[in-house]
Amino acid sequence: MSNTAPILLTPGPLTTSARTRQAMMVDWGSWDERFNALTANVCSQLLDILNGHGTHRCVPLQGSGTFAVEAAIGTLVPRDGKVLVLINGAYGKRLAKICDVLGRAFCTFETPEDQPTTAADVEAMLRADSRITHVALIHCETSTGILNPLPAIAEVVAHHGKRLIIDAMSSFGALPVDAAAIPFDALIAASGKCLEGVPGMGFVFVRDETLDAAAGHSPSLALDLHDQYAYMAKTGQWRFTPPTHVVAALHEALLQYREEGGLPARNARYTANCKTLLDGMARLGVRSFLAADIQAPIIATFHAPRDARYQFKDFYERVKAKGFILYPGKLTQVETFRVGCIGDVDARGMQAAVDAIGDVLREMEVLDI
Amino acid sequence: MSNTAPILLTPGPLTTSARTRQAMMVDWGSWDERFNALTANVCSQLLDILNGHGTHRCVPLQGSGTFAVEAAIGTLVPRDGKVLVLINGAYGKRLAKICDVLGRAFCTFETPEDQPTTAADVEAMLRADSRITHVALIHCETSTGILNPLPAIAEVVAHHGKRLIIDAMSSFGALPVDAAAIPFDALIAASGKCLEGVPGMGFVFVRDETLDAAAGHSPSLALDLHDQYAYMAKTGQWRFTPPTHVVAALHEALLQYREEGGLPARNARYTANCKTLLDGMARLGVRSFLAADIQAPIIATFHAPRDARYQFKDFYERVKAKGFILYPGKLTQVETFRVGCIGDVDARGMQAAVDAIGDVLREMEVLDI
Repeated sequence: MSNTAPILLTPGPLTTSARTRQAMMVDWGSWDERFNALTANVCSQLLDILNGHGTHRCVPLQGSGTFAVEAAIGTLVPRDGKVLVLINGAYGKRLAKICDVLGRAFCTFETPEDQPTTAADVEAMLRADSRITHVALIHCETSTGILNPLPAIAEVVAHHGKRLIIDAMSSFGALPVDAAAIPFDALIAASGKCLEGVPGMGFVFVRDETLDAAAGHSPSLALDLHDQYAYMAKTGQWRFTPPTHVVAALHEALLQYREEGGLPARNARYTANCKTLLDGMARLGVRSFLAADIQAPIIATFHAPRDARYQFKDFYERVKAKGFILYPGKLTQVETFRVGCIGDVDARGMQAAVDAIGDVLREMEVLDI
Repeated sequence: MSNTAPILLTPGPLTTSARTRQAMMVDWGSWDERFNALTANVCSQLLDILNGHGTHRCVPLQGSGTFAVEAAIGTLVPRDGKVLVLINGAYGKRLAKICDVLGRAFCTFETPEDQPTTAADVEAMLRADSRITHVALIHCETSTGILNPLPAIAEVVAHHGKRLIIDAMSSFGALPVDAAAIPFDALIAASGKCLEGVPGMGFVFVRDETLDAAAGHSPSLALDLHDQYAYMAKTGQWRFTPPTHVVAALHEALLQYREEGGLPARNARYTANCKTLLDGMARLGVRSFLAADIQAPIIATFHAPRDARYQFKDFYERVKAKGFILYPGKLTQVETFRVGCIGDVDARGMQAAVDAIGDVLREMEVLDI
């Protein structure tokens, strides 16, 4: 195992299939119509997953997922809008920071990192402040792996006639979001997460009328989703140089996604991965941070063992030597570490990771877990 | 030739070496110290090329080159600054548009697309408007391939105590810029041009004191170069998910750059490529748009043949079928097409491209060239 590249048990970049990486062995001309067709096909496949054809448009964007989040806020929230940001982790905080830097009015509602925001919370906030025009929600907060109740929150937001922006970075493709059933203005995700592409581009699904009304909103040229879409609709090309190899890899990853059986199959595999992980860690005595009913099958957070012989750095390096790259915790109050359940890995791989973790804890003589 | 992927004779994305693409066959953990070391090594190699160690810092940024240009303007030009943008093509115009969208005061000086900006022009502009704080210059304007006289302009700008921002997107790595000899505040380039990496990241070299003074300037979180650098200096990591495969490809491309003989060798190869192209096209009777003395060895622009039997689309497809992807013109007044001289191609490849173009013109019975 240690002779090959380690498996990334991280929330992205993650382990991709050899076939996906192989798609990067071709250099594409960004102006060539074959590449335009590739981009159009990627967008169409993404809309398939969302069931968003005819209601939403897919706007791909260069850069990391955060670039796409900032682009969505900057392009879709008018300068006199006000955003309610729902926070229970680092990505919610980042979304609030984006509103702050962009000079968009915003307020926040924060719950502890192990507690989902509820629809009742959102209802109360919307009743209390009529100036709120938009609600921004992290679907699955990667800081912990917590799942927020999107359908119920979307219903409340729609009932109040407000607009919903969903950061679905670490859930899109694995957890169902049906654009015909859940009302929202925008949903943001990226290439290198549950679709199992490589990192380097994000994409934003935007409701047709919302995008049409967004001309001139953006305080940025590079991050202007309206301009990006309008140019692509007219020419078939990206406005600025696309990450051609990343697009080609995502295209190939999407073909495999469909072959695997689409969202139900991806969801089932990740759910099995997560169950194997949680069950195995429980047998080792490692305590899960989240209650099982709010755990998304994307990434799991575990309390660091109490034993003084446990040091994350040493633990990480030893597990890595056995073929698995873990992820550090991102909580300020509690020492934790994280293990991703996503990427080109199955339950057998997850069991091997659990076995490696068990071996390392024994090697380190970590007893008080 | 037509059975393999065509050679991209475009200004980027361009043809990369198989070795560079092969570097993308590994999935890297973005938090892992081996990846941090890769990023640090890339930045160090980039500073080597600039001779910028000790005076400038290298700030890599996700996205296309334009993202890095916008980041440089937004981060480095204070909100009360004023930018003189020197224009002789589409990229100069784009830079002015970025200033406009960001709400930075700016003025422009525009010369025809076949005429470089001169140091005397800049001198006159700076004398006429003392509010100008920054001058922004496109080193090699990819619209035509024209070379602007950077050293002379830099001297005038420094003499007036103003700050120079250089968009060296299509020249960096092929045309010499010595940070110890040429005074500038920032120089911007990207992975997928003369360094022969794949597209997906840019980088900005910023003078140490300029970057230190730029905290809080940026109107964007994602495009904040100060924040990007500060986080990387503290943690070794990118602030937001890096395009790991693109970084790995650039690292491998930089190793090959050094092995080839660094900038002198890269410059010599591209110069030979350009000469082969220009000489060959002249023999075919195809007229070059630029005078030879202002032609950078990066990309050449040619007048479209006058013959009614010439149609770019048909011409492009036929040349592509023979193994070469050309580039459309970007001039508004004159019908042209462009041929890049950069990428993993040598003079023999350029001669083959010229031969293909000659064959196609004969096949199309284009006589009046």
